[in-house]
Amino acid sequence: MPVYTFEQCSDIIAQTLNNPAHLNREPFGLYEPILYTFSTGGKYIRSSLALLACNLFSDKIDQALYPAIALEAFHNFTLIHDDIMDDAPIRRGKPTVHMKWSANTALLSGDAMHVLACQYMLRAPGAVLQPVLQMFHKTAMEVCEGQQWDMDFEHADYISIDEYLRMIELKTSVLLACSLYIGGLCGGGDQVQCDWLYQFGRNLGLAFQIQDDLLDVYADPAVFGKATGGDIVANKKTFLLITAMNKADEAMRLRLHRAMSTYFPTPEEKIAEVTAIYDTLHIREDAEKEIERYFNFALDALDKVEVDAPRKEEIRKLALRLMKRQK
Amino acid sequence: MPVYTFEQCSDIIAQTLNNPAHLNREPFGLYEPILYTFSTGGKYIRSSLALLACNLFSDKIDQALYPAIALEAFHNFTLIHDDIMDDAPIRRGKPTVHMKWSANTALLSGDAMHVLACQYMLRAPGAVLQPVLQMFHKTAMEVCEGQQWDMDFEHADYISIDEYLRMIELKTSVLLACSLYIGGLCGGGDQVQCDWLYQFGRNLGLAFQIQDDLLDVYADPAVFGKATGGDIVANKKTFLLITAMNKADEAMRLRLHRAMSTYFPTPEEKIAEVTAIYDTLHIREDAEKEIERYFNFALDALDKVEVDAPRKEEIRKLALRLMKRQK
Repeated sequence: MPVYTFEQCSDIIAQTLNNPAHLNREPFGLYEPILYTFSTGGKYIRSSLALLACNLFSDKIDQALYPAIALEAFHNFTLIHDDIMDDAPIRRGKPTVHMKWSANTALLSGDAMHVLACQYMLRAPGAVLQPVLQMFHKTAMEVCEGQQWDMDFEHADYISIDEYLRMIELKTSVLLACSLYIGGLCGGGDQVQCDWLYQFGRNLGLAFQIQDDLLDVYADPAVFGKATGGDIVANKKTFLLITAMNKADEAMRLRLHRAMSTYFPTPEEKIAEVTAIYDTLHIREDAEKEIERYFNFALDALDKVEVDAPRKEEIRKLALRLMKRQK
Repeated sequence: MPVYTFEQCSDIIAQTLNNPAHLNREPFGLYEPILYTFSTGGKYIRSSLALLACNLFSDKIDQALYPAIALEAFHNFTLIHDDIMDDAPIRRGKPTVHMKWSANTALLSGDAMHVLACQYMLRAPGAVLQPVLQMFHKTAMEVCEGQQWDMDFEHADYISIDEYLRMIELKTSVLLACSLYIGGLCGGGDQVQCDWLYQFGRNLGLAFQIQDDLLDVYADPAVFGKATGGDIVANKKTFLLITAMNKADEAMRLRLHRAMSTYFPTPEEKIAEVTAIYDTLHIREDAEKEIERYFNFALDALDKVEVDAPRKEEIRKLALRLMKRQK
């Protein structure tokens, strides 16, 4: 039974997504933004995880191919609509759909992409179609809920760390979990194994998202690929900021509030001041501990999947890579 | 075997839609606009047609209940997003979602309503789940295409009558057709019968939409419920305007273009001038002939459905009522 690597899986996804002849059709105003979005690539994490999960139980990974493509289409649909809501100009180094065309085009093409995702998902093996679709739509609703919480939190005075974790779980983790679950089902994995795959994906997603918050402040910009401190400049309520607010005594809380509301001549000064507060409060260590905790939950869940260890190696390697770790 | 009336069906739909306890949950910012939209009612034409079509083949119309609710949810989702795109302030006499909340809220709640529609549709009987979903998503894509053509046509210099008919077919008729088809399948109707139901719905939708264009100009405002001439004031490319453009000689075409581009002190004067042109060209008669033609196609298709005539009577009566006819 062949074991596919992440690279092989993401190549298969790229080939399938970059040759969708059935989308080269009128009305071009609807389909061109979809083709454009697919052409901007992405890392194909979700779709590759679906193929790798399928491969745990079966060597016929094409059983999970269209469900995997569906997950990619769904993810891209949410990005197009999120970018309208955030008025984001750039995605994957290219103009966002609403900037390149218009908000109306991005709205409608996004809707069409959501339909397309449903159509692709319908190509799951008949024997598992019902549970696959159940998980897919449940997850889709949770992703909408996560986006709503995220928007609500922008205007909230106080958010607890539990509320924050629930938000990132809904917005990010459940789709990773769903990808593994659906891939597993398509490969013939039973309910128990797929539930463990789900828990693996959910905890990996949480670890990844907290790490994303951490890297915004503490990453090496040359390695991270984007400038650090963006979240600080935007006063974004990240794991770091919420933890700092909770840990700070009255004086430190005032200093943090002042840093967030004062005018700084340059962004660098604001970043330096907030980072100094984080350092004093040892927020970096707190975040690292939490990342470690969720990442270990993830690996424990993967251990529980009753499949020979070598077959799980590619998934474990991808998880390590996502977390930028060696082992 | 009981034969349900349209009133009974729409009451069942109203009861189910107005008591969705499972939607009374957080985040309220996501679910309240959905509950609000359901509470504004509507005529439940699509969902009732699904129940009536189910009832042709089975007395257990609850087999089609959630698919019917799904069609209603899907229709309302498209209205919420269309209203953003058209910046429409009022729907069913109430503020539209993007006016009452915001465009972002309408965007995201609309997306959630689309997911909800998929979840409801998943409750179709297992034996027909695959073809039901196939038809549902195919139709959803066509509705997106219809909306795109409609937006494209706003900026087009010339549209043929065939292009116009194809646009209204996609934007309006296919969802009526899909409702009857899915209802029929849920009731146990075979492929051939459901295809005839589809053709009935498709042609009824075309007749209805052309009639909608006609009534905007020639209806009695007291009966029609809204002021006439709105399409003329907006220079909307309706069946009447496109037919007039095609029939007019050079002089008449110039007069029509002038009427569309000149400043009139009051809308009434513009409406009177364009209506006078339509009258001269006998556009009303052309439209009535076309409505008659599609309506007869619809009734012929319904005749072909192999079910005792009395069982089809409620569907025929609803069609007559939609067309404001006695027989």
